[in-house]
Formats: sequence, structure tokens, C-alpha cells
Amino acid sequence: MCLQEDKGSTVIIQLEEKIQQDQLAHIEGQVNALGYKPTEVRTQQGHYLVAIGKKPFDIRHIGHLDGVADVHRVSDAYKLVSKKWKVGYSSIDLGDGVVISPNELALMAGPCSIEGEDQIRSTIQHLKEQGVRIMRGGVFKPRTSPYSFRGLGIDALVLWHKIARENGIKIITEVLAVEDIEPMYEYIDIYQVGARNSQNFRLLHELGKVDKPVLVKRGMSGTIEDLLQSAEYIFSSGNERLMLCERGIRTYESAYRNTFDVNAIPLLKEKSHLPVIADPSHGIGIRKFVEQIAMASIVAGCDGLIFEVHETPEEAFSDGQQTLNYSESSRFVQRARDLFGFRMDHGM
Amino acid sequence: MCLQEDKGSTVIIQLEEKIQQDQLAHIEGQVNALGYKPTEVRTQQGHYLVAIGKKPFDIRHIGHLDGVADVHRVSDAYKLVSKKWKVGYSSIDLGDGVVISPNELALMAGPCSIEGEDQIRSTIQHLKEQGVRIMRGGVFKPRTSPYSFRGLGIDALVLWHKIARENGIKIITEVLAVEDIEPMYEYIDIYQVGARNSQNFRLLHELGKVDKPVLVKRGMSGTIEDLLQSAEYIFSSGNERLMLCERGIRTYESAYRNTFDVNAIPLLKEKSHLPVIADPSHGIGIRKFVEQIAMASIVAGCDGLIFEVHETPEEAFSDGQQTLNYSESSRFVQRARDLFGFRMDHGM
Amino acid sequence: MCLQEDKGSTVIIQLEEKIQQDQLAHIEGQVNALGYKPTEVRTQQGHYLVAIGKKPFDIRHIGHLDGVADVHRVSDAYKLVSKKWKVGYSSIDLGDGVVISPNELALMAGPCSIEGEDQIRSTIQHLKEQGVRIMRGGVFKPRTSPYSFRGLGIDALVLWHKIARENGIKIITEVLAVEDIEPMYEYIDIYQVGARNSQNFRLLHELGKVDKPVLVKRGMSGTIEDLLQSAEYIFSSGNERLMLCERGIRTYESAYRNTFDVNAIPLLKEKSHLPVIADPSHGIGIRKFVEQIAMASIVAGCDGLIFEVHETPEEAFSDGQQTLNYSESSRFVQRARDLFGFRMDHGM
Amino acid sequence: MCLQEDKGSTVIIQLEEKIQQDQLAHIEGQVNALGYKPTEVRTQQGHYLVAIGKKPFDIRHIGHLDGVADVHRVSDAYKLVSKKWKVGYSSIDLGDGVVISPNELALMAGPCSIEGEDQIRSTIQHLKEQGVRIMRGGVFKPRTSPYSFRGLGIDALVLWHKIARENGIKIITEVLAVEDIEPMYEYIDIYQVGARNSQNFRLLHELGKVDKPVLVKRGMSGTIEDLLQSAEYIFSSGNERLMLCERGIRTYESAYRNTFDVNAIPLLKEKSHLPVIADPSHGIGIRKFVEQIAMASIVAGCDGLIFEVHETPEEAFSDGQQTLNYSESSRFVQRARDLFGFRMDHGM
Repeated sequence: MCLQEDKGSTVIIQLEEKIQQDQLAHIEGQVNALGYKPTEVRTQQGHYLVAIGKKPFDIRHIGHLDGVADVHRVSDAYKLVSKKWKVGYSSIDLGDGVVISPNELALMAGPCSIEGEDQIRSTIQHLKEQGVRIMRGGVFKPRTSPYSFRGLGIDALVLWHKIARENGIKIITEVLAVEDIEPMYEYIDIYQVGARNSQNFRLLHELGKVDKPVLVKRGMSGTIEDLLQSAEYIFSSGNERLMLCERGIRTYESAYRNTFDVNAIPLLKEKSHLPVIADPSHGIGIRKFVEQIAMASIVAGCDGLIFEVHETPEEAFSDGQQTLNYSESSRFVQRARDLFGFRMDHGM
Repeated sequence: MCLQEDKGSTVIIQLEEKIQQDQLAHIEGQVNALGYKPTEVRTQQGHYLVAIGKKPFDIRHIGHLDGVADVHRVSDAYKLVSKKWKVGYSSIDLGDGVVISPNELALMAGPCSIEGEDQIRSTIQHLKEQGVRIMRGGVFKPRTSPYSFRGLGIDALVLWHKIARENGIKIITEVLAVEDIEPMYEYIDIYQVGARNSQNFRLLHELGKVDKPVLVKRGMSGTIEDLLQSAEYIFSSGNERLMLCERGIRTYESAYRNTFDVNAIPLLKEKSHLPVIADPSHGIGIRKFVEQIAMASIVAGCDGLIFEVHETPEEAFSDGQQTLNYSESSRFVQRARDLFGFRMDHGM
Repeated sequence: MCLQEDKGSTVIIQLEEKIQQDQLAHIEGQVNALGYKPTEVRTQQGHYLVAIGKKPFDIRHIGHLDGVADVHRVSDAYKLVSKKWKVGYSSIDLGDGVVISPNELALMAGPCSIEGEDQIRSTIQHLKEQGVRIMRGGVFKPRTSPYSFRGLGIDALVLWHKIARENGIKIITEVLAVEDIEPMYEYIDIYQVGARNSQNFRLLHELGKVDKPVLVKRGMSGTIEDLLQSAEYIFSSGNERLMLCERGIRTYESAYRNTFDVNAIPLLKEKSHLPVIADPSHGIGIRKFVEQIAMASIVAGCDGLIFEVHETPEEAFSDGQQTLNYSESSRFVQRARDLFGFRMDHGM
Repeated sequence: MCLQEDKGSTVIIQLEEKIQQDQLAHIEGQVNALGYKPTEVRTQQGHYLVAIGKKPFDIRHIGHLDGVADVHRVSDAYKLVSKKWKVGYSSIDLGDGVVISPNELALMAGPCSIEGEDQIRSTIQHLKEQGVRIMRGGVFKPRTSPYSFRGLGIDALVLWHKIARENGIKIITEVLAVEDIEPMYEYIDIYQVGARNSQNFRLLHELGKVDKPVLVKRGMSGTIEDLLQSAEYIFSSGNERLMLCERGIRTYESAYRNTFDVNAIPLLKEKSHLPVIADPSHGIGIRKFVEQIAMASIVAGCDGLIFEVHETPEEAFSDGQQTLNYSESSRFVQRARDLFGFRMDHGM
């Protein structure tokens, strides 16, 4: 990668839904005349021009043009994911009453790897008892060693989807490569981009063309700005239904698997309008401390949690050392909801 | 420093209060005969032999000897600060009803630097209104640049102490060097060892000889084990009234001053019987996020908070950017107590 | 990603070139009977069974079987890239007398981004004058911001290839995604996997199926073992013509763009039979220090250097701040060769 | 510690040797009138006013005053150690023809810990055979665990000094605390400040009052600027005979003891006029790679090396795993000198 990314001045122009082609051309002409380079972004929700230039100008020059709904200046390196131009936080409606929003605590739980029908049914039964509506699980597993179990693949996903639909459960699972986006599409509700793919820019770009939500994990040593730029990639290629996920970073400390960075949560909420999800399981990577990291995330301001649960963690194909069993998971869910209630009651 | 620290087997032998010299000699002889090297540790609270060796032996061989109160095996590199040998958590009684213990949330607040009588009186007035009994503040300031303000020194401490005593307030302040321990002694209630001195082993050793509590901050890039070993230094030279403090570590992320490591809190509580204090002010170093980091620390299990407050942070001699004003501090204290109550009620 | 990677015992069985199907089946049967799981690996150069199990066994049980050329035990997490089983270091022959081997210093130079025909011709002219045979340059650029220049794409590569071939110059360029492997194939000599794709396991897997060499860069916060496992991915899916590249890691120090990790060079040479290339340009990211980092790499034991050069760095589309101009590059090449000569003369 | 260090404009005023009190007062008055705060610094070599302020002014206003030898503006946070005001590099003359300067490679070698007379004599014999004039060794050892060997103390230093003097050998050894400065003074030639004391500001301040050279090691996670500020502490309290030492930093990589940061060497040489010494033994911490890291340091521009050598490393009291034996050390010294010669011949 190269430096010299342009961090000059940016203006976000929200366009009217029914803007006409000649109106758009006129706006682009005006933007160019001001020495700004416009990039057109069309998502399922909106239509924008992201105009990047050097010298600030009076945005009212643009604001009064036909076809312009609103104009904002953004000073951040990331643009469309910035909170500077958007009133309020973004919510994501998954249908059937499942919504990710600042008003409730989104819970996503399940095993590290999908292992078979029995495990799927058992997990779903457990989730339903807890009122958890989104199930996580891997069918394509990124593994450091090529000789490790890499997941059961698309067939397992098809089966999982069938059982989940029968039970009103939504599915989030990791997408490893561009060529999997299309085959997975029918069977998932949220695409997850893992830490190792957090700067796989081609994958991010292609996920912008899909009309399903994406959860982007922070890279192993990704900065806050890196994560926001990764989300910007997806948004700017057309998909604004995005979530940001803190899952621990790599530091010198080897007492935990990763160092869960709780600081990222209030900062991301300050910088961006996107929902922020915490992954305490990977974050600390030690089963008995997962609950405490989750609770810390809630009071730090996260909008949801994604965590690992398995009927018998010690027999799980992977990640057993950081996975809760059902009894632990039940206590976890109850406490998380109580604490979220406390947060709301206190206006925190 | 050198490697090759001995991490073999350790046995902690608690001695009876009225042990006689010949009994002690006999025990030491037995320990030596087992191939272990005993170190005698005498604190204000207890009397121990720390016996380090290679091959484990049946500790009942020692347990039945005259003068032995109890015997435990410890597998950690740190010994006397380990939770493996002690029943329950340690509490520290500062007198006048001020106690640091797992049963209540200890609060220590005040400015980065002591600036003068008006500031001292104003701060104490604020703390009293909040029911905060311990005041922090620096009179000897470690500064990266030799040309920066280094604190008002011992005279300011004497004045501060006088006003604090009149108001029933306890004092915690940083000690920078061995030669300051004695002059400070009369005027403080808790010695604080800062991050930059976290492995100043001579200072730690000398603080072991004093009968006042010590709060040890984690080093800039200190590991959990480093911090526990630093506490072990003080304990093993005679002072067991110790607190451990998480205050953020140095990572690649530059969006915050330090990266507050919330993971350290449950881990330290698991490993050690000592109270764990969180410093959210230095931890994230950004005023508007201090409260969220503090709340995260509470549900992660800390026993107390140390934070910076100033009547007019923007005019503070130092650290203004991470210091709360009185109104923020009042809300902070109220929420911290409410949340601690929630934690206790839920048995967390 | 998940933990619990199997790090038990591994046996690498090199098979005879003309092994017959029933012989292979018999060997696999024996391996299975010993409780080992065999993975067949067929590369352009060799044919192997990588057998992973728990309990070590006497490898002579396998060594005498028909069809077995050689058997070795490997204790590392990575297997086929380990130096434990291979006599001597691997060399990579690019044809036309261009060889990457421990006996000479491989030099790869060129701009960060390919910018057009004039720049290509000028660079090639410069490289020929210096006797440098491999040209680097990006046509698909990974950029943190989606609004940054992303490279001229495949058309520029076709043009570059044509001019390079006329001048006897080999091409190394970055591949960003699986779908680009095939279109790029005809026009490149070495695929480069960038730091951000260092654990893009699908990309690595697919590059194993191609018969062109691959240079794998260490991830932003990749460990030595991570890098070797990434190479293992490619090797185990069929391509053993691989190079490892140190390009700086992410640390707390912000005085340089990255922290070039010179320690990695002797360690990688100790652990693996693959050539090790240093990238001093990205490694430190500051033009005036690039030469010193390169020299350090040479005496630390690297087999080659990849660095950035541009006729007018201050006008380069990207990375100008770390790019040498022609005069600096000439001195650099001369000194690098002299120093490599010194290293060889001294048996270092 | 606190932020808000003043990084405004600084002017260094070199005063004439025979400046009179009224002249000095006049200069200080003028500096104050310009809104600058002057700090008087008197070292064994020079006499300075360090004037720190906000708004730059024309330094000729000061330059013509009586008693002023020279005036320079310095933009760095560190001042007197900056290369911006000093013509040429500083050299340190230890007497008897032992000089640390850019024109030759300073070599300091010896065991981690001083273990007794035989070891001292054997080491000195070895050093003399190699023409090494400075011996390192610890008598006060900083140890992570309080139960580890902490060195033989002052008596061993007295003995060592006696034998060293008989053999024309200079001594460098670590000083742990202010109270040791005076007792050690008579027996040492260079005080060493270890990584854990790199920001022990009181120790640094007191070392400024002594007329013996000081080598300051970079902290475990110290930045380049931290190291320069630590040296500034000593310089500004009166001692300008200083050396900077790179000894490896703490990163996420656990394959080596520390991550030797070769990048620091050219940067420190660029920023400061002080000699830069590399410690490859602690830097990588693995015996068989110490030589390669040392060679890398030489071509990166260091002025000297400090490394560990022991007759039988495997029996050393400490650090055996990173200590060379005599035969390795002899080869090391020869190659280091040859390579330094190469560097000088090539004007590198």
C-alpha cells in the first residue's frame, strides 16, 4: 500500500431521490468548477456525491442547486461513515422484527464452526429459549494452518438456513472471498468480514454491491481509522447497512489471546453513525472472562454483542477455550440485558 | 535485565506469630534439606518463608513442624501476591473508616498537579460533597521534558496534608525516588508508584520497609506478570498493604493517549488477592470518554477508581485534556456507585 | 479465526517421481494405520505426503516402502516450508539467467505505481544501466481510502509486459484477488502478496495452483510463524517456488512509517529453506534511510532486496516520500553489491 | 505523568567561557523581554541558556550581545541533544587513548553479571587479546523477580576496578539508584542507565551532576523522542558526555526476546549529535543471531557495540542464552572491525 492518501476537504452532497440526469450533471459541473472531484455513490438507501478537494468553500453555493437534498462538510479521512453529516445513528432492519439499533442490545450467538444438524438444532433451541434472534457460526473458516479444519462449506450453510428459517432465526457468517458472496447470498442475513480480511479491499468493494448487511471486524492491528475506511469502502460502492466490530487487537501482552480494546467503543460511536458490535469471545479469548468483557462493552456504549456458545465447548471443533456452555450463556444473556437496561435508565 | 529467572516450584510457609528462633532454624534446615532455598519475609501483618526449589515435595512434611501456621504451593512466578495461597481478598484499612476492599468501590480523585491552597480547598470541598474520602494530586511530577513543570514539592504536600486532615480526607501521591520516601512519610496515606517507575526495583524494595500502603501502576508496556512481580518486590521486603493499578498500555493505536486494558482487571483479580484500581483518566486520556472507561472497569471487576478532577480543567497546570470538571465528576461518582450497586446486587 | 490448530507430530514423505497408484495407496494405508492423517501435495517440483498425527513413530517403518524417496520428521507448526526436511536452500529460476538463490543478491526495483509508458521506459532504462533484471510496480493498488488512486489496471500491465520483454526485464507485481490471478498470469513473472493479504487464505490457496513464483509479504502485525504458515498454504496447494518478504511491522513507534524488523531475517533463514527478501522502502518509509536499512538487511542474511525508485519521486503518484531517485538508486545498487561481496568473502 | 509538555520555539544560546555576571543578567533580561523563559545550563564542557517561548524572533537580536558565543534555533522537543545547533558529532574521551567517536567502532564487552575474580581475569585476558578496551558487567542487577540473583554489589566492583586498571581496561556498569552514584564513582568509567530506568527522571537528573560519561538505554517501549528527552535531562543538569543505546523494544512478536529496532540507529544519528551504541545481545536475545544484528547495526550507522561474552555461557549466572563464548566473540570482533572498515571506505 502507499501513503499520500488525500485528506483534504470533503463535501457530502445528498441528492434528491428523483433527481434528473441534467440536474446531476449540473451539480457535478459546479463541483468540478470549485476544484473538487466528485464521486457518485448510489446505495439502496440513498444517492450521494462525495466531493473531495483542497480549499474549503461555502457549501451554500451547492446547497441551493436543484436536485440537492442536503450538503455537509466532513473533515475526517473517512466520509460517508462519519457522524459529521448524518442526523442520528443508523439502524439495520433484518426483517421479522429483528432490528439492530441504539435502542436495544443486539445479540448474536452460536458456535465457532457449524458442525452438523444436531448441533444446529441444539443451538437454535438454546437461542430461542434466551430470546436471541441471530445465530453466528462458521462454514468457511480462515485457519492459520492449511492442515486445519476449514469448515463444512456451502452444504452446511444450506441446511443451517433451512432450520434457522423454520425457527425464525437470522444468520450471520463469515465470507472469505469474492467468489463466495453470490453462492452464500440466499442463505444468510449478515455477511461477516473477519479480522484477517479487514483490509481485503476487493472483498469490501464487492460487498458494497450486495443488498444484505455487512459486519466488518477490526483488523488484528487495525487502527480505528483503518476500520472506518474499510466500512467506507463498502458504503461508497453501494451498501450502507454496515456494522463495525471490535474483537481485540494484537499487543505485546500474551496473557490473553487478543487485547480487547474497550476504548474503541466510545470512540467509534463518536466518529461514526454505524452500529458498533463487541466480540468478547475473540476479544479476550478466555472463557471465564468473556462475560466481564461483554459487560464492560455494554457500559462503554456498544449496540450489540457477538459471542460463542456450544453445548459442550470442550468438544467443539474449534475455539472451545473461549466458548460458553448453555448455562453460562443463559446467565450471560440475562445479565447483559439487565445491564443494558441500567444503561438506558441512566441515560448513559 | 537478565533472563533465567527461576520459575520452578515454590512453597509459601506461613509462620506462627510467636515462633521461636530455634523453631525457625529447624524449619529452614528442613527446607534446605529438601533442596529448597528459603527467603524469610516479615511484614507488618505476617511472617513467612518463601521456599523456592525445583522438585515438588509433599508439603505435609513441612506442615506438621512446630511454628508453621500454614503451607501452600504456588506455581506462579510471583508468590506472595498470588491468590493461590490466601483465603479471600486483601483489604486495606486507611483509618477513620476509609477502607479499600472488595465490598465497596474505593474512589480517589483530584487534580493532576497540586497548584496551591485555593485549588486544594476547592477540590476538597468538591470531594466532600461527593463523599469521596481519598484525594489524589502530584507534588513531584515525572515529566518527559526537563523543562516542564515538575511540581510544587514537599512544601505543597505539607500544606495539602494540613487541609486534608482538617477535612477528614486521605492523601495519595506519587513518590519518584527513594530519597523522598522518608520526607513524604508523615504527610501521605498512600504512596503511588507511577508507570515509569513500575520496574524501579530499588524504589519498590525500599517501599517494602514502610508501614504505609502502596499503589503500583502497571508500566507503559508492562505485562500482567511484570506488575505482579513489582508488587512481589514490595511485599517480600515487608509491606503487604498493596494495590495494583491498570492505567493503559502503549500500543500501535494513536487515537487515544494510552490503550486502557480492561482485560487486565479480571485477570489480576483471578491471579492475586490484592485490590485492583482502575485509572480511566490516564487510561484513555480523553475527557469525554473517561466515564465510559470507568464504568467498563467497574463491571469488569475493579475495586476502585482513581481519576482526575479540576475546577477548571482547561486552566490546569497539566493533564487538562483528560480531567473532569466538578459537574462531570459529580455525575461520574453517582453513576459509578449506582453501577457498583448493580454489580453487587447481581453477584457479579 | 479459531485456535486449536494441531501442532502434534508431522512426517513429510517425499514420493518417487514415478510412484504408482497402488504404491501410493499402500503408503497412505500404512500412514493411516499409524494414526496419522496424510495430505497429498503435488507441486511442479515434487510429490509429497504430509502426515500429521499425535504420537511419534519410527520413520523407518515408512522409509522402506516402495515409492518413498525420503522421509523426515518436522516439529514446526509449518511443515513443507521448514528447513528441517530439506537439504540446502531453495532457488527460483525465472529464466533468461535470472535466478533467486543464496549465491547472489536478487534486486527488484521500480515505482510504487505504474504511471504510463514514459515512466515504464525510463525506469527500465535505469534498471538496465544498473544491471537490475527484475522490475516492481503496482497496477492494482490496495489503498486505505476508496477515493484514492487504485492503479491503472490490466491494460497498463499488458503494456508494461511488452516493453519489459523487449528489454529482458522480469516483472513482479501485486495480486489483490483470486479473480485477477488468471488475467495477470501471462504478463507477470512473480506474483506479490501484499501485507494486507498476508492471511487472505483463499488467495494463498489459489496461488498454489499456478506455476509462477510468489513473493509473500509479512502481515502488518504478522508473526514469523504466521508468515511461514501463509507460505505453507501456497506450497501445500501445489506451488513451491516461494519467497518470504520482511517489510516492517506495526509497533507503538510513530517516528517511522513501519518498524523494519531486521531480526526476522536471520530467523526466517534459520527456520525455512525459502529465499528471504527485504523491502527497506516500506520497511522504514523514509527516503534518506532506505539505503541503511537495505545494508542492514544484507549483512543480516537476506537473499534479495525489493525497493522503490522513480525518476522524480516528488511527482510520483504514490509513495514518493520513501522512493529513491535514479542517482540515489545507482549508489544504492553499487553499495548493495559491494556489501554482498563482503558478506560472501567473509563467509557470513 | 502529564501531557501538555511545551513544544513551542526554543533558542539555544551558547555563552562565552569568561562571561561576566552582569552580562549574563543582561542576556537573561533580553530573553525574558522577548517572552522567553531562560534556563541556565552549565556543564563541564559548556555554558548555555536554553530559552523556551512561543513566538519565533530574529536570533540576531541576541547574537550580538556581549557574552554570547553563538545562537541557534531548535525546533525539536529535545534541545541540547539535538543536532540542530551543534557542528559535528560529539566524542567522548575516556582517557588512555580510549575514545568514543564517529571515526572508530567502540567495543564494550563482558558478562551479564560479574561473578568473581577468576571470571574477571579470564574476561579481561580475552578482551585484551581482541584489543577491546571497555568491559561491561553487572554488579547491581535489575531483576523482575525479587528472589533472583541481584548481583555481587560494590565489593565486586572494587575488585573488578583494581584488576581492570592493572590491565588498562575501562569499566561500564549499570547504576540502579541515586544513592549508588557516589559509591560507584571512583570505580567506573561509564554509568549505564538500563531500559527499566530510562525514564527514572530523578536518576537522570542526578547523573547530570557527575563528571563521568553516561550511556542511556532506550526504554522497553520508549520512543525515539523519549530516549532523546532522557538524555536531555542529564545534559540540562550538567553532563554532556552521553551515549544513546538501542537495545530492542517490546512488540507483539515473541520469537525473540526483544525486537531489535535497527531503524532507530539512522534516525538517532540524524536527530542528535550524541554517539549511538547498539546492544545486539539484549536486542534479539538469541546467541546465534547476535552477530548478524551487530553487523546490521554497523552498516545502519552505529558508533559502537556493547555485547555479552562469557567463557562458558551455559554456566553464566544470567543471560547465558544470549552470550557469546570466547571463540564466537573473537570472530565477532574481527568481522565487526572489517565491516566498519568497509563502511568507512565506502563513505557510508
